[in-house]
Formats: sequence, C-alpha cells, structure tokens
Amino acid sequence: MKKVNCDVLIIGGGPAGGVCAMTAKMNYPEKEILVIREFEVQLVPCAIPYIFGETLGCSDKNIASCGGAVDMGISTILGKIEDIDLEKKIAYSSEHEVSFDKLVFATGSIPFVHASLQDSLGLDGVFTVPKNKMLIDKAKAYIDNIDNVVVVGTGFIGIEMAMEFAESGKNVTVIGGSEHILKGPFDPEVAIQAEEILLKHGITFIGNDRVTAVIDKNGDNIVNGVQLKSGKVVDTQVVVLATGYKPNNALAEKVGIRLGYYNGIEVDEYMRTENTDIFAVGDCCARRSIITNTPSKVMLASTSAAEGRIAGSALFKIKYLKGFNGTIAIFSTMVGDMAFSSAGITETEAVEGEGDIVVGSFTTTNRHPATIPGAQKQFVKLVAMRNGGQIIGGQIIGGNEAGEMINIIGVLIEAQVSIYQVMSMQVATQPMLTAAPTNYPIVMAATMIAHKIENQQ
Amino acid sequence: MKKVNCDVLIIGGGPAGGVCAMTAKMNYPEKEILVIREFEVQLVPCAIPYIFGETLGCSDKNIASCGGAVDMGISTILGKIEDIDLEKKIAYSSEHEVSFDKLVFATGSIPFVHASLQDSLGLDGVFTVPKNKMLIDKAKAYIDNIDNVVVVGTGFIGIEMAMEFAESGKNVTVIGGSEHILKGPFDPEVAIQAEEILLKHGITFIGNDRVTAVIDKNGDNIVNGVQLKSGKVVDTQVVVLATGYKPNNALAEKVGIRLGYYNGIEVDEYMRTENTDIFAVGDCCARRSIITNTPSKVMLASTSAAEGRIAGSALFKIKYLKGFNGTIAIFSTMVGDMAFSSAGITETEAVEGEGDIVVGSFTTTNRHPATIPGAQKQFVKLVAMRNGGQIIGGQIIGGNEAGEMINIIGVLIEAQVSIYQVMSMQVATQPMLTAAPTNYPIVMAATMIAHKIENQQ
Repeated sequence: MKKVNCDVLIIGGGPAGGVCAMTAKMNYPEKEILVIREFEVQLVPCAIPYIFGETLGCSDKNIASCGGAVDMGISTILGKIEDIDLEKKIAYSSEHEVSFDKLVFATGSIPFVHASLQDSLGLDGVFTVPKNKMLIDKAKAYIDNIDNVVVVGTGFIGIEMAMEFAESGKNVTVIGGSEHILKGPFDPEVAIQAEEILLKHGITFIGNDRVTAVIDKNGDNIVNGVQLKSGKVVDTQVVVLATGYKPNNALAEKVGIRLGYYNGIEVDEYMRTENTDIFAVGDCCARRSIITNTPSKVMLASTSAAEGRIAGSALFKIKYLKGFNGTIAIFSTMVGDMAFSSAGITETEAVEGEGDIVVGSFTTTNRHPATIPGAQKQFVKLVAMRNGGQIIGGQIIGGNEAGEMINIIGVLIEAQVSIYQVMSMQVATQPMLTAAPTNYPIVMAATMIAHKIENQQ
Repeated sequence: MKKVNCDVLIIGGGPAGGVCAMTAKMNYPEKEILVIREFEVQLVPCAIPYIFGETLGCSDKNIASCGGAVDMGISTILGKIEDIDLEKKIAYSSEHEVSFDKLVFATGSIPFVHASLQDSLGLDGVFTVPKNKMLIDKAKAYIDNIDNVVVVGTGFIGIEMAMEFAESGKNVTVIGGSEHILKGPFDPEVAIQAEEILLKHGITFIGNDRVTAVIDKNGDNIVNGVQLKSGKVVDTQVVVLATGYKPNNALAEKVGIRLGYYNGIEVDEYMRTENTDIFAVGDCCARRSIITNTPSKVMLASTSAAEGRIAGSALFKIKYLKGFNGTIAIFSTMVGDMAFSSAGITETEAVEGEGDIVVGSFTTTNRHPATIPGAQKQFVKLVAMRNGGQIIGGQIIGGNEAGEMINIIGVLIEAQVSIYQVMSMQVATQPMLTAAPTNYPIVMAATMIAHKIENQQ
C-alpha cells in the first residue's frame, strides 16, 4: 500500500475534474492537487461519435491532452478509489492510501440502459457509448465490418453516431420513443429539419416506438435484430444503445454521500456537499434548470467545465460570486452540414410548464448578400417572458457559425437581458461571416416578440 | 412639380434608412412612410470590396433587396432632396414637393479624401470606394485590366480590397500612416498576424508613411505612381483611396440642422435633433463611444441598423427604452481564411485614455480535439476594468466562427458583465463547431484577468 498525501484529491480526470484541478492550482498555487483516474488515456467525450466515421476515424485522434495540468504541477495517479474514510480523510484504491484535506467527486456518468435491455448487453453486436477508450475501440473494430446498424436513442450522441455510420456507407435505422428526434433541446418544427437531413442521408427514423427486446434468433449469442413495441421487427447486425447516461455514483453512495434527484450528488451553489470539505462537479451531480429551477437531466461538458471552475476556486474560500444558478442546457450538434443549437427552455417545455411566454422566429441567410459563396439558411427562434420580455430560450439552425451564435443567446439568458434591449443591440456583421445587419436574426426574432406582445398575440 | 404627402419622410435608403422605414411601419402601421433615394439600385455597403475579386465578381451580385419594404407597404421614390422648408415641413427635389410630419436624415457617408489629394481624383486610374453602383462598376472595369495596384488606407475596406486584388493575381501595395494595419480596432500583436497574411498573399505593406502626391509623369492625365512622404516612389497604374468616409451632410448643413463633432448631425439618445420632428440615423450622425463617451469616427452598418431601429420606434412616441448609449464599435473582417473581430475598446486605446485596465488573452483551436478536420487557431483577448472587472473590449482571431463569437463579447460589454461572471459562464461547445469546454477562450481570457488582478499585475 503506497501512502500519498495531498491537499485536494480529485476523483476523475474528465472535463469537470480536469478543469477543477487546473482552477484549484491557479487559485491556490501552494496546495498539492492530486487527480486520480482509472485510465491512462482519457477520451474527449463529445467527439466519441466522430471516432466511428470518417471525421476522426480512430480513437487515437480523440485523446484529451493533460499536458497543461502537468506543466502547472498537478499530480496524477492511475487507480480506482474503492473506499473512503471521511472521518480520517483517507481514500483507498487497491494500491494507494491517499490522505486529503478537500475531496472532489468528478466521477462522471455511465451509459443508462433500460432494465428490460440490460441482458442484451451480453450479446455480440450490442454496444453502449461509454467514455472508455478500450470499449470504444472494441465496438469500432466490430462495427467497421458490419453493414446494418440500429441506433436506439435520438439524443445528440445517437444522432451524431447515426450520421457517422451513414456517411461510412452503412444502412442505419434510428429508433426513438418520441415523435421527433432531439426532443428536449428542440421544438418540433426545428427537429423536423434535422430529420429531413437524416432522410437525405438514407437513414430510417422510427419514432413513437420502443425496443422491447434484442433478438438472437440463432441462440449463438450474436444479435440479429430488434423487436419494437409496435410489433415491427428490424433486422440488424449491430445495436447501439445511445439511451442516455446516469451519474456514476456507486462510490459516493457506498461512503454515504447524500444523493439527490436522478441519483446525482446533492451540492450547493458552490458545488459543496453537506460536508463542506467534500465537493462534487460534473455529470455525477444533481442539477437544476436555470429557468424553472426544477431537476434537470442535462449532461454537458460545458456545464461540467463551469462547475469545475466554481469548485476549483471555492475549495478553500469563496473567491468569486457564482455567476449562474442551475444549468442553462446550452449545446450544439451538427447534422450533415447544418448546425443545430439550443439554449435555455424550448417553447414546448415552457408551455408544458405553464410559462406565460411569447416566441418569435426569423429566417435569413448566414452571409450577406445571399450570393456570397457558401451562404446557407439561418433560422433563429427565441422564447421570452410575456411580462418583462426576458429571453429564456433560443434555438438556431445554421452553418457552423451557429455554434458560437447560441452562446450569444446563452449570455442574454444568463444576464437576464430582455428583447427590448436586444432590439437596439449592436452586432458585428460582415458579408463573409454573418447575416445582414438589417436582418440580423436574433434582433429580428426579438422584434417579432415585441410586436406580438404589443398586439396581445 | 409633383406633390406628395406622407407622415414620415426618410432621406436615404441604405441600411439605416431601410431599417428605420421598416421599423416605423411595424410600429406605426397606420402612418404613411416614404423613402426617397438617389439610386434605382442600392449596393450592400460592406460587400463592395468583394465585387473587385473572385468572391462576388460583379456588382449585380451585391444588390440590397427592397422587397421586404414594398411588401410592408412602404413607398419609395427616386430623387435627391435639394432643399427643405422646416417651418412648412416640405422637402423639395427637382421633381417632387414632399410634405411630411416627421423627417429622418439617413444620408449616409461619402469617401473622405485628404485635401492634398483632392486634385488627383481627376486622373484616370485614381478611385475612391463610394456606395454607388455606377462609380463602382466604372472602377472595376478599369482595374480589371490592370496588374499593379496601390491601396491607400489600412482600414478594413482597404485591406479587404487589397486581398481581393491579390487573389485576382494583381501586384498590390498597401500604404498606411500607422506602423500597423487595422489600427483602431486591433492592438499591434493582433494586427501583425493580419499583416503576415497579407505578406503570404504577396502584398507589400508600407507603414508609417503617407502619400504626398499622385504622379502623372507623362502629363496625359493617367496615373503612373505615388510619391510618399518618406521619399519612396511606388510605380502603379491604379490608386485606390480607401482613406475613410465622412458624413454626407451638405443638405443638413444647408437647411440649418446643427452639426456636431466630425460634422455629424447632433442627435439625442433617440436619434432626435434639436427639432424633435427631425431625426437622423446612420453614418450622417455624430457618434460617441459607449465606453469613453468621447466622439467616435466609427461607421458601421451594424451601428447604423441599430440607430434605424431606435428612430423607427421612437418617431411618434418613446416606445422602448434605448438599450445602449454610443457605439460599441463592434465589427469583423476576413483576411485570407482568418477572421479578425473586435468590439469595444482596445488595450492601446484604453492605455492612451488612462484607463485603469487589465488585459488577458488565450490561444487554442476552434475545434476539439485539434485533430478535427479544418481546425484553426483561435485567439481571444479581453480588456477589463481593474476595479469591478467589467469587460470593455475584446479581439478575436479565428475561423469564420469568430464573426459570431465577437457578438458574445458585444453582449458582455453592453450588459456590463464582469470577468467574474464570465468565469462560470456556461457555453455550448461541440467538436465540429467550437473550442473545448475546458479551454473555451473567452472564459480562459477572463480567468487570466482575474488572476492578474488578484496578484496586482
């Protein structure tokens, strides 16, 4: 048993743990910061789908660099913490005994698979999408030689995987429980446009259905198809279960850390547990929506990184007032050559939650004039409070500029800016880079909302 | 003399006038809105440089559409207002006598040429860059057959023109009065990177110098070269004077409208002149900096459009509180395949103005991991107040996403968000679209500033 001392022990080296470590070292340079993680090599989580197609083509091109942490003097050991003595402040792996002053859980998330499909995980050809290089390499090697693939799940990981498979020439069927894909971040009229791109790429989408069983008709432990609730059977040689993730909290539960909704670790505004020497950051935490304050299942590296920064600066004192409460659920994905981006709350979610909201949208081109080579359609939808006009959500379809454009809407939400301010907002526009200043779609969508509010629509 | 009646007469149909007309019609649908403009066809101002190269290739691809205005029921007549009786509220062109209730000057700007070079405008081969299709077509037809071009002026119009000429295979020399190009929006370390791109495209840049005379050595009224203050002579067959613009206010001056600094029309927060029935919007107005409140020479279509919206809604009553005071000077340009964007105040300008500021910058790639095809360098610099940490400026170098990314910084400036809030800001990140969440450069630059402030650097 090797004894190790540190001031801050961070369990996990994903985005939340990594950012927490670097922020801690920057804020408290005299403290010894130690990260313990299970794998020698850490994948960049959001780019895992791109390993399966031509975009990256292999996991070796998707390695998170840890060079920055090493240069800063952050220590790392490989291992898996199996137990913690919270009184004595010692964590135990099979090889190490680590004493700490502050402890940070950054244990992330693991694939969620519905109970009815757990058994199918033993079949050859059935895979989840874990953040684990060895398992991803194994899945890729298997799927590379297969022509027919079923993807279960219509979140962004499922859709990105499906597109990579389709672009590699495979026959792809996507199965989802809702009428439309990407439910949650997008309203139907936006999701439909992503579905049209799937269709153009030859992908079959079956919605409003559910996989009730994975079929192994020869009894040889190799998958042949999936049985759907509707009665349909889809023949396939590979099933990818992209049905979400759940907090990886076996260790926290074992040592008695209080878990909240969706089994995330319960934390306060500064990512502290009840025991203020123990923090948690990233997907292993319970999260709330910034708008409704209700529990949220959102798991995004951007939220995780923000949490890592908050904990890293607050470990020994509250150095900075927290800039936001809850997750803004801000994210982007690519479907073909179109970017789909979302922030805050959708119209669907707002209406279901009885929000007194007004929406406005505007369609233009992402270059001006529209004759600029490469110009694409650009669509912006905003959701705002009827009373006061604060912007609480937005969705964008566009070229790759949409990936940063959604962050404009993110700031508008976080800073509680209203449509009335946006109407006279100054925006940089340039023919090769943006829509026209006269038709800038965020401003125009805000204007539409003001007009509707005034006319009591 | 044709008599015409309207409620609102807008003189000029550029971005400011056009947006003002549409906003007015939306807010006051029962009012008759009339735009009078000089030209049948209106160019998109910012894309004029792209007419001269392969990007657009001709002015017919750079026409501003007026379809929206027609559909809304806005009237347009062609003509030039020569005089106005402010008492009787009647404006006169050579063909029309227009009576109005409210009047909006949106007369824009015209090329500024230093007094010492005014005479050279009579030579064949010497051109300015006016927003006038006929003159642009004439210049293009002439320059298309020429191999050697001198561009005088290193603002974004000059640099964009120079790049288009270079990409068309011409020998190009750019001459500027400062040590670096794009002075004003960019600090030297940023401008240098744009200069390197010019160099790679074979463009010669002569800085810290000035054209004292345009040479016609054969006395045949055709330009042969330029004489510089340093003694250098540059042989050339074409001289493009891209030395800025000035408010087009001959009419306003003639009828006794009060002009302010730089001869812009003096307006209040709602774009009203002393006579509150008379408004002015766009480049013909006097402007102030949002940060320092000092007079500003900034002329951008984005600012003009914002002013058009403000005036359009405030014509008959103040319907919306104005969201900003002064120009934020937010803009982008492309140099080769790199975008250069700027908002607010630079470090240079802040230090010259005795601002107690701190800067921070961060360099990363605009995709993550950096192995994603097409990944480019991305650089962000922020300028913040030492006390309070409010962000007052930013500069970005990156791929085409920088065009929207600068608008994030724009909102941070307008909403007076501090670096402390930005440090825990949530941003959407996606491998194909943005930098990594762990290294998102706006957040990292804010973090650098916080670190410097804490360590009293």
